[in-house]
Amino acid sequence: MLLVMSQIRAGIINVTGYIGVEIARLLYQHPWVMLKSVTGRSLAGKKLSEVFPHLENTGLEITTEIDEDVDIVFSAMPHKTSLNVVPQLLEKGIKVIDVSADFRLKDADEYPKWYGFEHPTPELLKNAVYGLPELHRVDIAGASLIANPGCYSTSTILALAPAVKAGIIEPGIIIDSKSGVSGAGRTPSMTTNYSEVNESIAAYSLGGHRHLPEMQQELGSLNSGIPLSITFVPHLIPITRGILSSCYAKLKNGISLEEDDIQRMYSDFYKEAPFVKIVGKPPRTKHVWGSNYCLIYVTVDKRTSTLIIICCIDNLVKGGAGQAVQNMNLMFNYSETTGLEALSIYP
Amino acid sequence: MLLVMSQIRAGIINVTGYIGVEIARLLYQHPWVMLKSVTGRSLAGKKLSEVFPHLENTGLEITTEIDEDVDIVFSAMPHKTSLNVVPQLLEKGIKVIDVSADFRLKDADEYPKWYGFEHPTPELLKNAVYGLPELHRVDIAGASLIANPGCYSTSTILALAPAVKAGIIEPGIIIDSKSGVSGAGRTPSMTTNYSEVNESIAAYSLGGHRHLPEMQQELGSLNSGIPLSITFVPHLIPITRGILSSCYAKLKNGISLEEDDIQRMYSDFYKEAPFVKIVGKPPRTKHVWGSNYCLIYVTVDKRTSTLIIICCIDNLVKGGAGQAVQNMNLMFNYSETTGLEALSIYP
Amino acid sequence: MLLVMSQIRAGIINVTGYIGVEIARLLYQHPWVMLKSVTGRSLAGKKLSEVFPHLENTGLEITTEIDEDVDIVFSAMPHKTSLNVVPQLLEKGIKVIDVSADFRLKDADEYPKWYGFEHPTPELLKNAVYGLPELHRVDIAGASLIANPGCYSTSTILALAPAVKAGIIEPGIIIDSKSGVSGAGRTPSMTTNYSEVNESIAAYSLGGHRHLPEMQQELGSLNSGIPLSITFVPHLIPITRGILSSCYAKLKNGISLEEDDIQRMYSDFYKEAPFVKIVGKPPRTKHVWGSNYCLIYVTVDKRTSTLIIICCIDNLVKGGAGQAVQNMNLMFNYSETTGLEALSIYP
Amino acid sequence: MLLVMSQIRAGIINVTGYIGVEIARLLYQHPWVMLKSVTGRSLAGKKLSEVFPHLENTGLEITTEIDEDVDIVFSAMPHKTSLNVVPQLLEKGIKVIDVSADFRLKDADEYPKWYGFEHPTPELLKNAVYGLPELHRVDIAGASLIANPGCYSTSTILALAPAVKAGIIEPGIIIDSKSGVSGAGRTPSMTTNYSEVNESIAAYSLGGHRHLPEMQQELGSLNSGIPLSITFVPHLIPITRGILSSCYAKLKNGISLEEDDIQRMYSDFYKEAPFVKIVGKPPRTKHVWGSNYCLIYVTVDKRTSTLIIICCIDNLVKGGAGQAVQNMNLMFNYSETTGLEALSIYP
Repeated sequence: MLLVMSQIRAGIINVTGYIGVEIARLLYQHPWVMLKSVTGRSLAGKKLSEVFPHLENTGLEITTEIDEDVDIVFSAMPHKTSLNVVPQLLEKGIKVIDVSADFRLKDADEYPKWYGFEHPTPELLKNAVYGLPELHRVDIAGASLIANPGCYSTSTILALAPAVKAGIIEPGIIIDSKSGVSGAGRTPSMTTNYSEVNESIAAYSLGGHRHLPEMQQELGSLNSGIPLSITFVPHLIPITRGILSSCYAKLKNGISLEEDDIQRMYSDFYKEAPFVKIVGKPPRTKHVWGSNYCLIYVTVDKRTSTLIIICCIDNLVKGGAGQAVQNMNLMFNYSETTGLEALSIYP
Repeated sequence: MLLVMSQIRAGIINVTGYIGVEIARLLYQHPWVMLKSVTGRSLAGKKLSEVFPHLENTGLEITTEIDEDVDIVFSAMPHKTSLNVVPQLLEKGIKVIDVSADFRLKDADEYPKWYGFEHPTPELLKNAVYGLPELHRVDIAGASLIANPGCYSTSTILALAPAVKAGIIEPGIIIDSKSGVSGAGRTPSMTTNYSEVNESIAAYSLGGHRHLPEMQQELGSLNSGIPLSITFVPHLIPITRGILSSCYAKLKNGISLEEDDIQRMYSDFYKEAPFVKIVGKPPRTKHVWGSNYCLIYVTVDKRTSTLIIICCIDNLVKGGAGQAVQNMNLMFNYSETTGLEALSIYP
Repeated sequence: MLLVMSQIRAGIINVTGYIGVEIARLLYQHPWVMLKSVTGRSLAGKKLSEVFPHLENTGLEITTEIDEDVDIVFSAMPHKTSLNVVPQLLEKGIKVIDVSADFRLKDADEYPKWYGFEHPTPELLKNAVYGLPELHRVDIAGASLIANPGCYSTSTILALAPAVKAGIIEPGIIIDSKSGVSGAGRTPSMTTNYSEVNESIAAYSLGGHRHLPEMQQELGSLNSGIPLSITFVPHLIPITRGILSSCYAKLKNGISLEEDDIQRMYSDFYKEAPFVKIVGKPPRTKHVWGSNYCLIYVTVDKRTSTLIIICCIDNLVKGGAGQAVQNMNLMFNYSETTGLEALSIYP
Repeated sequence: MLLVMSQIRAGIINVTGYIGVEIARLLYQHPWVMLKSVTGRSLAGKKLSEVFPHLENTGLEITTEIDEDVDIVFSAMPHKTSLNVVPQLLEKGIKVIDVSADFRLKDADEYPKWYGFEHPTPELLKNAVYGLPELHRVDIAGASLIANPGCYSTSTILALAPAVKAGIIEPGIIIDSKSGVSGAGRTPSMTTNYSEVNESIAAYSLGGHRHLPEMQQELGSLNSGIPLSITFVPHLIPITRGILSSCYAKLKNGISLEEDDIQRMYSDFYKEAPFVKIVGKPPRTKHVWGSNYCLIYVTVDKRTSTLIIICCIDNLVKGGAGQAVQNMNLMFNYSETTGLEALSIYP
């Protein structure tokens, strides 16, 4: 290995949320990236270490405006606010990975329905690539704008893609997901208050969660022969990090598969994916804690001919910051795993 | 109120598990019961308060043998061991509430399949009443032997009974349950080790959980017209107490129900049930913590015509000890709620 | 017991915090109290059950103003706001238990120092009784205004009172307290955000915590011969309920005590106190969860002649709402334990 | 940087405990180490990944005997069992880092008192170096046998060393430590059972914890002028990883220090220590989660002239496996931080 490869310069807009701060951690440890600029609104002017002591080594200060002398910007702003910033960056030739939902949906008509606004730049939706490397590796490599997937979407699309692609299941899919609290972000709220969440579990967004159209778009595009009908119910559980998605779908009539067959089909589907592991028994989210791995267990409930898929990710890594870095690696022709080799921390 | 009603005397076999010790707490606080005798194997000879300081006021000592000068015995032994004790107690005219699975299944043939033993007294299976008051109130009142339901079964049967009875759903039902760790009992194991469970969630028993045949038996008997096909996947989450069951079933073709209609149907079904509340938004297990209540939220996912039912109980109260006391109240003609009026403790 | 004793009517100002809502739970279950009126600012107009489902049975609505047709008012407002309300209530002959610090300190000069305001009614400070029944039972019985102690103060004063009174320790006392998160209240903040608190412990208020002057006042008044010098450091730990205070003080020169002696001295000191238990081994906060009990373990580190006292309470019960009800019982000549008999819920 | 530096080969005896498995994770990620052999008793014959899925990439199998074709062995056996293995390894010229207490105490007479056995090889106690790099960097570099410090000892010695060395405090020191549950090891027990530990805190080992003699030995050797008298009380709190030690000591008469002075003194003491950071406000254990850092906050309680030091480490990293790797780095002349650069994972 020769060190002729020069480092790229990166910036993070709105570093102060959990995804932003996790991107900062990963980039700081990335051998080919120099994290040059981080912004934040209310905390501008402070040292990054004042707010996030674990990032002291970065030596960075939080600024109001992004330094545009960078090769790539990670935009970690809330939905609807990225819209106003991303186009200018692209025009200046800066690549952008946006972790909000603002560029995830191909169909601009979905935005008013799910996000309550008309999309101002529908033409960008065509250029934006949905940043799930396991499905779009080649497109990501050539993209200027990446729409980084939602955390729930990542876990459920990875769980279901092989079965949908293979056409072995009926259209009616039940997805029951359980997420740690960091997925709700860093802004204090009653919903994330310790005493409310601890020793409790709840389902929410039963009227329709915003990650659902992403799932439909991505899974739907894998197999036009199955008119997917997805019921998705997220749950909040008292852990900080982790998503476990349990997916259920009837096998098509006449299809009889052994667990071994289906596990082999899954392994095959992901044979080029360094972060997806098909495992032989039900995984725990603890097995991916702090890492970019995605563990998938797939089995068949023979009594009911139901395919059951259990998928675990760390919502802030593979479900957010890690996936963003994985996308960046592809965009800059680095090895997909660079800077993401850290094993999970157990226990 | 006159105190002419005399107290009954009660005993607990194997008080040292979490269900046993919770029955002791509830009986100690019950106005019409004198807790007279508690047994335990390894801890026999110790004061109850030495092992369980919160029960100091009971003044009881753990003995090897149950004092048979009692009106009712709660048998809190592990599966297969109750079998050897219950018949003798019944012969002596002592009423028995057994919290194990040994008398829950009507069909003796199910025992080898699910529990690995031939049932030695299949005739008792006929006399035993499945102790879910919401379905069997009258039979319980007249019974000598109650098979107290499993914790998962309680939550899922209560969640689904009205819909099954009404015949509005297709046979394929998905039940995704999440349980606190106390459900796994008090005996230390790797599975319940703090560092393994904390900050983690896992699915388990995907090959078939032992509570499944109870669900099939009880729900199946409500409506012979629906050949139920239940997929049940339990999950272990890092809370001490609480079960949340999320149940999914397609509405039958042609059936179109508003959330209001279905909530009314549920409220109607449970109008005589003092501990079941149909609530207007998704409940949290924290809302039933420490109480005998069962909260049920029912809604329709119109996109997919799927009925979704979310049900919360405290696994050690309504899912165990509280239900046992509720059964005892019915058997001795006390008000169903006596000794169980405590509200949930929040937060 | 004859039912000629008529119920009193009670109100709660600012029911919406954790102490307020816990008082509501306890009063609802109290046999001699009718909870008549509960107020709250932002939530006025809502049913109590909408915000706190576990209180549905109360049937109450949150109002803006307190119904003054009551015998007692529990004021659960933040510090400094009680000041404006309490005097009027007292003038109308309504007894008041104030859970804020506004009437806890006898010396008005302490308020500017610790709370940043001049006390407007220093004369009320003389009439107010510090509501720790174990020290002021008689005064409480005759009082119109009770200043309910802080949660930390309750645990540390009860832990140290016998030793200070007996004069067996040197003046330098180290108190290291650990509290659950509910002590920080129900208002969302970064400090109580689940993802910040979970899997973490921190010390805080090292510059001086506001409960310190209470401790000094109450312990100081027990023995003028020891010029107390208290170092108090509170810690936030990831539990919802519970305070464990570890107290350290050198035994005076020449004093040599066996653990048995000192435990007997403590038992003796609290022989009239129904909620304080001197225990024979270190207690866990779980042993008081949800109850009004206070468990104290006292021992001597012979290597260093240091008295060590470990004290556990539930910060919302004995450290707040339960103590308030205990005070009310004394004020209305009920048995001190009425409505507070519930055992801890374990596990 | 040239890759001429050849890798060393390492083995781990008893990889199956939490410290063992964490050493495996760190060594796998270490650029100059090839992890060659891992042993375990009950699990011998299994793939490491079967038991610890996060270590799948190592490709290792658990064996009964250690492969002696290695340069260094990490012995992660329980106390008293290392004794039988270490001498043979040393004789074969293999360097050893022992994480048990078997070689930590210089005075062989302490073993019967604290560990209940006569030390069989007291001569080895002389050669063994107490592996706290911040105090013994040079000796460690030249050692063949390292006694890796206890987790509590690491946090308390680092917290107190500068103050003891400087001679600014009185001999009476109070140490109140709080540890996560992983410190109790991986073997299931009632004490570490989730339902017992969750929502609870307890003090333990008040009669004298085994880490106390280490603290006395190491701190005592820093300043013979202070006859240290240490009271140490550990507490178990419901987190998986982390120790926070709160240390209290009176400033010597006549010594008056500002927080700034004392922080500067501490910074100075640790200016060569890459993993110790003196911070300007009380740290949280979350700030060191998963990293080898030690954060120390030091202040003076002016009211009582008491020095207060708060110290945070991850008990499995700086308090165990990370420190062992840090020692290895020194022994093999690598940069002290190699393989330990990972930042804490937050939140």
